[in-house]
Amino acid sequence: MVEMMTGMKRTHACASLRAQHIGETVTVMGWVQRRRDHGGLIFIDLRDRSGLVQIVFSEDLDADAFRKAEAARNEYVLAVTGSVRSRPEGTVNANLPTGEIEIAVRELRILNAAKTPPFYIEDGVDVDEMVRLKYRYLDLRRPEMQKNLIIRHKTAKVMRDYLDRQGFIEIETPMLTKSSPEGARDYLVPSRVHPGEFFALPQSPQLYKQLTMVAGMERYFQIVRCFRDEDLRADRQPEFTQLDIEMSFVEMEELLPMMEAMVAQIFEEVLGKKLERPFRRITYAEAMNRYGSDKPDLRFDLPLVDVAEQVQDVEFKVFASVVKAGGQVKAINAKGCAHFSRKEIDELTKVAAIYGAKGLAYIQMTAEGPKSPIAKFFTEAQLQALLTQLDAQTGDLLLFVADRPEVVAAALGALRLELARRLNLIDAEQLEFAWVVDFPLLEYDAEEGRYVAIHHPFTAPKDEDLHLLESNPGQVRAKAYDLVLNGVELGGGSLRIYRRDIQEKMFALLGLSPEESRDKFGYLLDAFEFGTPPHGGIAFGLDRLIMLMTGRETIRDVIAFPKTQSAADMMVDAPSVVAPRQLRELSIKVDIPAKKPMSKA
Amino acid sequence: MVEMMTGMKRTHACASLRAQHIGETVTVMGWVQRRRDHGGLIFIDLRDRSGLVQIVFSEDLDADAFRKAEAARNEYVLAVTGSVRSRPEGTVNANLPTGEIEIAVRELRILNAAKTPPFYIEDGVDVDEMVRLKYRYLDLRRPEMQKNLIIRHKTAKVMRDYLDRQGFIEIETPMLTKSSPEGARDYLVPSRVHPGEFFALPQSPQLYKQLTMVAGMERYFQIVRCFRDEDLRADRQPEFTQLDIEMSFVEMEELLPMMEAMVAQIFEEVLGKKLERPFRRITYAEAMNRYGSDKPDLRFDLPLVDVAEQVQDVEFKVFASVVKAGGQVKAINAKGCAHFSRKEIDELTKVAAIYGAKGLAYIQMTAEGPKSPIAKFFTEAQLQALLTQLDAQTGDLLLFVADRPEVVAAALGALRLELARRLNLIDAEQLEFAWVVDFPLLEYDAEEGRYVAIHHPFTAPKDEDLHLLESNPGQVRAKAYDLVLNGVELGGGSLRIYRRDIQEKMFALLGLSPEESRDKFGYLLDAFEFGTPPHGGIAFGLDRLIMLMTGRETIRDVIAFPKTQSAADMMVDAPSVVAPRQLRELSIKVDIPAKKPMSKA
Repeated sequence: MVEMMTGMKRTHACASLRAQHIGETVTVMGWVQRRRDHGGLIFIDLRDRSGLVQIVFSEDLDADAFRKAEAARNEYVLAVTGSVRSRPEGTVNANLPTGEIEIAVRELRILNAAKTPPFYIEDGVDVDEMVRLKYRYLDLRRPEMQKNLIIRHKTAKVMRDYLDRQGFIEIETPMLTKSSPEGARDYLVPSRVHPGEFFALPQSPQLYKQLTMVAGMERYFQIVRCFRDEDLRADRQPEFTQLDIEMSFVEMEELLPMMEAMVAQIFEEVLGKKLERPFRRITYAEAMNRYGSDKPDLRFDLPLVDVAEQVQDVEFKVFASVVKAGGQVKAINAKGCAHFSRKEIDELTKVAAIYGAKGLAYIQMTAEGPKSPIAKFFTEAQLQALLTQLDAQTGDLLLFVADRPEVVAAALGALRLELARRLNLIDAEQLEFAWVVDFPLLEYDAEEGRYVAIHHPFTAPKDEDLHLLESNPGQVRAKAYDLVLNGVELGGGSLRIYRRDIQEKMFALLGLSPEESRDKFGYLLDAFEFGTPPHGGIAFGLDRLIMLMTGRETIRDVIAFPKTQSAADMMVDAPSVVAPRQLRELSIKVDIPAKKPMSKA
Repeated sequence: MVEMMTGMKRTHACASLRAQHIGETVTVMGWVQRRRDHGGLIFIDLRDRSGLVQIVFSEDLDADAFRKAEAARNEYVLAVTGSVRSRPEGTVNANLPTGEIEIAVRELRILNAAKTPPFYIEDGVDVDEMVRLKYRYLDLRRPEMQKNLIIRHKTAKVMRDYLDRQGFIEIETPMLTKSSPEGARDYLVPSRVHPGEFFALPQSPQLYKQLTMVAGMERYFQIVRCFRDEDLRADRQPEFTQLDIEMSFVEMEELLPMMEAMVAQIFEEVLGKKLERPFRRITYAEAMNRYGSDKPDLRFDLPLVDVAEQVQDVEFKVFASVVKAGGQVKAINAKGCAHFSRKEIDELTKVAAIYGAKGLAYIQMTAEGPKSPIAKFFTEAQLQALLTQLDAQTGDLLLFVADRPEVVAAALGALRLELARRLNLIDAEQLEFAWVVDFPLLEYDAEEGRYVAIHHPFTAPKDEDLHLLESNPGQVRAKAYDLVLNGVELGGGSLRIYRRDIQEKMFALLGLSPEESRDKFGYLLDAFEFGTPPHGGIAFGLDRLIMLMTGRETIRDVIAFPKTQSAADMMVDAPSVVAPRQLRELSIKVDIPAKKPMSKA
């Protein structure tokens, strides 16, 4: 029954046909979306990447084609030639771009048959994601999934066109590279030629792109695969794609607007959305103070308010003692939430607890006045001062967390997002971009007993803070910047260190001995001595950007063949056991301690 | 001495300045190419990616800048502001695009200093390649190397633009995938989450791209990194880049011209060279017969001539017995080479021997008549018939190989190239493209005792040869095609099998049991049952294409950070030994049998 397409040539995409084509003979090819038999006619909605068109068979038009059409089932692959005609009155489908016409088929070839797929090929199917991933080649047939990949393609195209116009050159950097000191998250690749030695897959091309600057390439970019073997949290993939950019002879005031223009071009060309520029800028300190996050969602305000001064003297020991210990007491005024039930307040308390808060104090601004378990600890004057500061009106709900600054920020930051959802403060269509700047260069890791780099060890300190590098490293701000959209970090970058002496000082601050620095980064330190220009750059997470652009909830929906949360490919069944011979050739052995492999799903 | 660039902004690329800029104040940044002190003036050729410009310092212009300029050495990084002026009469440099002007410097900042590099930063340096690779960041500063990378960038851009216009979508396929049955050449990646299991890096995205066709994406492409852990012959890299293309509902007559148009666009837009189209086509059989190669260099003819009929009855036993045993006797007429010395003929004999020829017979057509160690075995009539067939004239050298057809083709094919070089038959500017078509589907591997696929197991047999698949598999031709340029294979592809029954038959022919087929390719066989469209594609080797376009002799010159012949990165020193903790986390152990690691260089 299945025939070759030999000699037939597609003339049109299914969904490109319109009334203007009436009378033309066309050849289309695609998949059977559905078949209806009605009054001696067979109607098939034929689907290709462009969309649907109705094709019609009858004994009169062609008896042979009609007979074959009777055999066609969903997802059969057809090639048809026929003439475009207008649909009979009353059967026009205004919801379909091709709804005014149909093709009267004179030749049909069934190019391939199809079993009944495990789920229906249409948008919004309610299928377990594991099934979708196993049959990814069917899942990707669904129009919404095709659209995601097309938007991804278009976005990468706009990026490349824009950067090319700005004189950037796409340069490919190696995938087989050297394990880094943060090697714990490296994917390793044993070398057959060098037994006992390993390559690492890059977590980012950071050093190679900096070396293209040493090499005088001046403007580099690459849309590049990166790898991180980490515990797979919410929405990470072992391999992900970033737009990686680096530029010489540049300062932030030139780089940031250039990147804004690119992002604006993407949203305009791909989604038809105009963005306002320049994007707003907010310092790290302000973002943390006001929103409890270094990637604040700015589609709504709902700020965190520091009330330490108002509560430091109250009888409520929790507040007073935290302030005394150098902690913070902060509050959010949840407008109009005074009516929240005990259960709802318990739910909010649980959210705060996830982020380490030991409790969530609250005041309900009822019509009868402030109602709160902690009200009794306040004098009338203290209470009034607090309510005034928080602009508390009848109907409001005031929520308090007292703790170390990190905990207050994390807990109230999360509560702020939770409240915005509950209060419907978020306009899904709104796009709020912001640059977060003036990050600290370092933070102290109490566990490791040393400073760690907030961005990475190659980020330059701000000139005006350079003098603090030895005396007070924690106070040094970095020439670093993150681009945030609706509370999601789209990208981040920095101006780099380009002098050997400063880079060595930085490594020392991070606890690397001169020998370790030399061993891990000797080539970079050497390179800095041969005339390295000032340079800086940025990297954008492509998966996450496309996820936001397409309004999906997981990056898996914008990756053609993603891995599961446990880093497995359900379709091809990878990773897998390999032949002993392969391991012998690589001079390695499997060496599993007494623990069981995890399930792949 | 080194200063920040804070507040300075580059206004021009060095080599963009012309007489029309005279009088303008400009800021340029770049590297010191060389410095000359002359008559109270300091001249510096400043270099950036665009090229050179001359900048001039004097006490009069700015004493501070003059003093700093005295300290500048080669490869120092400078930022200068000054005014463009015409050079004094007699000092115009017609060889330099900026040769009419110079910049009189009023402000100089030394942005970075430089040690003396291990080699001079200029084209055509004579330096050991190992040194160039170790200091790749300096090697890439040389204009010819920058040009190679820029041509690479432009070529990829033209490819993407062309394919986008044709409705192709770039889709990223996984790098962490499943080890294939040809797993011997797979790079493996141990999985931390799934102890004892491994990913493989892709040798090509072949199956994923076919699955995008099952998924109805219709037109896919990707410029993608591929990996092959093979013994590194002449000019291979462990990681290489290919332009990978796949298309549904297509036949060769549509696909090949579409690819030709892309290649023509590349050569025209990037190199300004117009190509003639359509490219010629030559069957595999003809290529092997006439040129002894399936990737013939067609810039010259110098054909192989089958002389079996003329020599089968001569007294010379070697010829006669080879013919009797089903072998071939072929000759090349090396025009005008009769004067070749014994030494030169010995050299040619060695070339033939590399390819397995047990000897090289010859006839020198001297003014005194044919001179040859084998002449005595011929009757006059036999000799005349042979000379006539080979169109032998006085001055010619006739070279003969008698052996199995593979050896004759390989040995004379190699001799043909060697003679073309010696006779200067090759015009380096000429571009001779050809499609080689009608490849055999399979060849018999005597060592393995089974058939192996010539292209790969997914290539479709020609319709008209399908009936031979079981009776005479070696005679089946494939729907496969290679694009050859000047004797180099630029790309290859095929129409694919898209029916489960034929794919299963193919696996069986290749010696896979049903269980093995299922285990390795079950997902593909399954996919073929859900409505797979006819499809086919091609892949081009980007590295090799750029090598030909730039006229380089090795692909290492067109890769930013290549590996050595022994698969090592000299700059970052990879592969390398990793921490025992890393291996423990991956549940593997190094297990080196008693042999020593190879040297990296």
